Amino acid sequence: MPISAESQGVSRRGFLTRVGATGGAGAMFATMGALGLAPSAEATTKVPFQPPQASDFRLRGRAAAKVVVLGAGVAGLATAYELGKAGYQVTVLEAQDRIGGRNRTLRGGDRLTEIGGATQRIGFSGDTYMNAGPARIAQWMTTMDYCRELGVPLEVFTNSNAEAYVYNESSGMKAPVKWRTAKADVYGYISELLAKATDQGALDQRLTSTDKERLLSFLSGFGAIGSKTNGFAYTGGDRRGYSIDPGAGETAGTLLGPPPSLSDVFASGVGRYFSFEFGYSQAMLMFQPVGGMDAIPRALAKAVGHGRIRTGAKVSKITNLASGVAVEYERDGRTRKIEADFCVATLPPQILAKIPHNLGAPVQAALKTPVAVSTGKIGMEYRSRWWERDDNIYGGITNTDLDISTIWYPSTGHHGRRGLLVGYYNFGANADAYARLDHAGRLSRALDMGAKIHGDKYRQGIAASASIAWIRQPHIEGGWISWPSRGAEYKLLCAPQGNVYYAGDWLSYEIAWQHGSFESARKVVTELHQRVLQG
Amino acid sequence: MPISAESQGVSRRGFLTRVGATGGAGAMFATMGALGLAPSAEATTKVPFQPPQASDFRLRGRAAAKVVVLGAGVAGLATAYELGKAGYQVTVLEAQDRIGGRNRTLRGGDRLTEIGGATQRIGFSGDTYMNAGPARIAQWMTTMDYCRELGVPLEVFTNSNAEAYVYNESSGMKAPVKWRTAKADVYGYISELLAKATDQGALDQRLTSTDKERLLSFLSGFGAIGSKTNGFAYTGGDRRGYSIDPGAGETAGTLLGPPPSLSDVFASGVGRYFSFEFGYSQAMLMFQPVGGMDAIPRALAKAVGHGRIRTGAKVSKITNLASGVAVEYERDGRTRKIEADFCVATLPPQILAKIPHNLGAPVQAALKTPVAVSTGKIGMEYRSRWWERDDNIYGGITNTDLDISTIWYPSTGHHGRRGLLVGYYNFGANADAYARLDHAGRLSRALDMGAKIHGDKYRQGIAASASIAWIRQPHIEGGWISWPSRGAEYKLLCAPQGNVYYAGDWLSYEIAWQHGSFESARKVVTELHQRVLQG
Repeated sequence: MPISAESQGVSRRGFLTRVGATGGAGAMFATMGALGLAPSAEATTKVPFQPPQASDFRLRGRAAAKVVVLGAGVAGLATAYELGKAGYQVTVLEAQDRIGGRNRTLRGGDRLTEIGGATQRIGFSGDTYMNAGPARIAQWMTTMDYCRELGVPLEVFTNSNAEAYVYNESSGMKAPVKWRTAKADVYGYISELLAKATDQGALDQRLTSTDKERLLSFLSGFGAIGSKTNGFAYTGGDRRGYSIDPGAGETAGTLLGPPPSLSDVFASGVGRYFSFEFGYSQAMLMFQPVGGMDAIPRALAKAVGHGRIRTGAKVSKITNLASGVAVEYERDGRTRKIEADFCVATLPPQILAKIPHNLGAPVQAALKTPVAVSTGKIGMEYRSRWWERDDNIYGGITNTDLDISTIWYPSTGHHGRRGLLVGYYNFGANADAYARLDHAGRLSRALDMGAKIHGDKYRQGIAASASIAWIRQPHIEGGWISWPSRGAEYKLLCAPQGNVYYAGDWLSYEIAWQHGSFESARKVVTELHQRVLQG
Repeated sequence: MPISAESQGVSRRGFLTRVGATGGAGAMFATMGALGLAPSAEATTKVPFQPPQASDFRLRGRAAAKVVVLGAGVAGLATAYELGKAGYQVTVLEAQDRIGGRNRTLRGGDRLTEIGGATQRIGFSGDTYMNAGPARIAQWMTTMDYCRELGVPLEVFTNSNAEAYVYNESSGMKAPVKWRTAKADVYGYISELLAKATDQGALDQRLTSTDKERLLSFLSGFGAIGSKTNGFAYTGGDRRGYSIDPGAGETAGTLLGPPPSLSDVFASGVGRYFSFEFGYSQAMLMFQPVGGMDAIPRALAKAVGHGRIRTGAKVSKITNLASGVAVEYERDGRTRKIEADFCVATLPPQILAKIPHNLGAPVQAALKTPVAVSTGKIGMEYRSRWWERDDNIYGGITNTDLDISTIWYPSTGHHGRRGLLVGYYNFGANADAYARLDHAGRLSRALDMGAKIHGDKYRQGIAASASIAWIRQPHIEGGWISWPSRGAEYKLLCAPQGNVYYAGDWLSYEIAWQHGSFESARKVVTELHQRVLQG
């Protein structure tokens, strides 16, 4: 919320929270404007959320209900956590022997089993870890607020880095270039072109003479281009980098060679990656929990209480009752049953669709509508951080048109003896191709690709590795889902059927982000709580 | 050096180091090419450096000399550290009662006294600190290597942030805009303009039809602009940000309003800050030592040995002798004298010029040639991190055309209870204007300016503050220096006079960066050691 308690006082704040809870965000902002409280900058805000509180019942004379939550991923744990604040009796059923769902951090000693039984015993050393699922958090996301609330310490996730590389094999690039060099060249040439066109009057229909002056002044700095007498030419400069760095005495530094021609720069396609970092969800700065992303589900589970979470509990039947709900599940080889007032199902839709239920044919059809997205990652622990020592790469991402898509350098532990690279993070057909291989095959292929950027050293000094193919993960079967369109099926599942609610990132506008899971959990918790309060 | 010991083997590496030591960097790279060892990417490298070793003397039958180093800043400490590796008898004389020079981290309990006697007692709480001098390190800088060698842990310094603001009062901006919004608008409009001009054939003399296709494809993504049928128009989009963030269910998110007109965007001048982050020394990722920049001089001093460093020792006379050098200094109210084989003077030139010496009139004229640059900072410790909670700003820098220049948000300690903002970091006339005020006046003026961006809350909840005006710091008298040109005076001081050498960032091509100090120290150490070895 863009209002500071210090500056606005608690009573106004409390008033606005109540407006937000009953009238929705639109009403809240209208009210803020009327009070003269709108911040001076055009501000972004989160959807207001007021957690259920035990005191809510005292006012209304009702009691917290019993809720069974299916799935101990982020959405399920957040649902249990928020309902728990008001004293709901919550039980979380989780099919796997661990919590977190797709929020999974792989560490030494872990076992990773795929559908079909292939098992990796993870051999990472010491504190080495790989965030197999979510790995980055944008500053605006609700995930940040949960980290604050739960005391999960954060550090920067280095989502882009001028020292990392771009490499497009298919465009005939002979060697990778650093992001900084690619940017200098592309920005230089587009500035040259736009300056020429502007100066020649080609844009006079769109630009006043004042606009033109200002634009030319901007382009001069933006592209580091020559003056009008030099034809606004881009001819390189220190933004590209140096072959010998500036030093002491007469060592002024030796600039990296002259830029490739304009045609070669556009032919290389290096510019296609730049807009990634302009994205609302991907722009730096981004963040990660210190020590691994699973700090978030662990903190949630601790707050929920481990006694309320049953792992190894595979749901086998969901029955919506006239009053309440019955859920059957298999645990330790026996079928068990739990009854509750409400059920919140947070399993991925493609998994939920496999479980017998009496929610009706439209629900079943809706659950089968979204399409699972294939994605995978490999982590390679090296015995030295050669990328820091040899390439000055302290974090960030190298972008390629190879089937690995990207190489990620660690955001933390700099100058440590060992470090873990993510050797691919890819999607769709590329992810499927790697998923079809066994782990050794994935590693071998990833190393062949990475060696095109980093040379032969990329194959050497690997102490341990692990790969995940989310499409092959039991009880998950996909990185996330995609809705062909958010039509009637989406709308249907956004509402409860009887006493069964659905939640998860798949029911949000931020699919594949924990933010979506948290927001969906908050929405369902709010709706369920209001229903209980209203009786 | 871009060669990995793992991949190339130690003998080749040793060979190359020797080539580097005798033939300079150029010879080394030529040799690398001949051996087929040049990396595939166009690579940057540091100037090769081989630290003196005790074993160097065994081969040549000579002994380490006695050296007096003037100044315990980064250059002085690095000189002492490197010479110490070969057993030189080094004494460091430091006028202040602390080491580090301009590398100064202010903490609670510190006293900060200015020329004239005004003293601030720093009231920061707990771990709160302000790096009053250097505050960021680029990945390519030698400073990183010293952090590795000395075991100084690093974390990201957040030099730019999509969530921070841009505000140009003089251009009539009504409110600050987020960096992400400013970028989306500027990149959108320049893409629209260049696409129009390209499509209309205005650049056909410079572009082939293939170039044009590729350029239009790039601009479509870079600027998020419309198609040809839509006139390539930029009309905003999610890169600008949201007024209500995307959430769950039907909360698709509400985009921030439509962009200002093209004329208004260029008139606002927001684009003038973008190229800052393309700079070779300023591009993200950047780094800082965990806990404060003074971890570097502290680690250096520990490695040198505190017994070799005399603080409170104000040099009063430097005498170049036929054999050796004599340095007089005041300490504890008494004049003392030290004799040595060599002296390395690392004081700022404007300070060195005040000390009587027999180095000759040309040296004195050369020392007086560079011009001291005024710069200052203020740090304000707030009782809450409202910029994180209210504005989603987790680090980074807000840019303004106000006399504060910038506001810096802390790169670390996120979600902590308190946090320190740098309320200005300015130069030249702006720094002079603040330097003329007392601390209370500086704070008041900085708050007036910052409130234009952050509103009234900016004035509230400040627990402590501290300001530094480097031009008013005893024994330093400037943030750094500027050479009118690197002419004969620069060249003169880059060489020794008799037995006196000069070192510091002011004798490098990276003035105002610790990198320059380290490189200068390495250069002088190498020259001095070779002279001693050659007898």
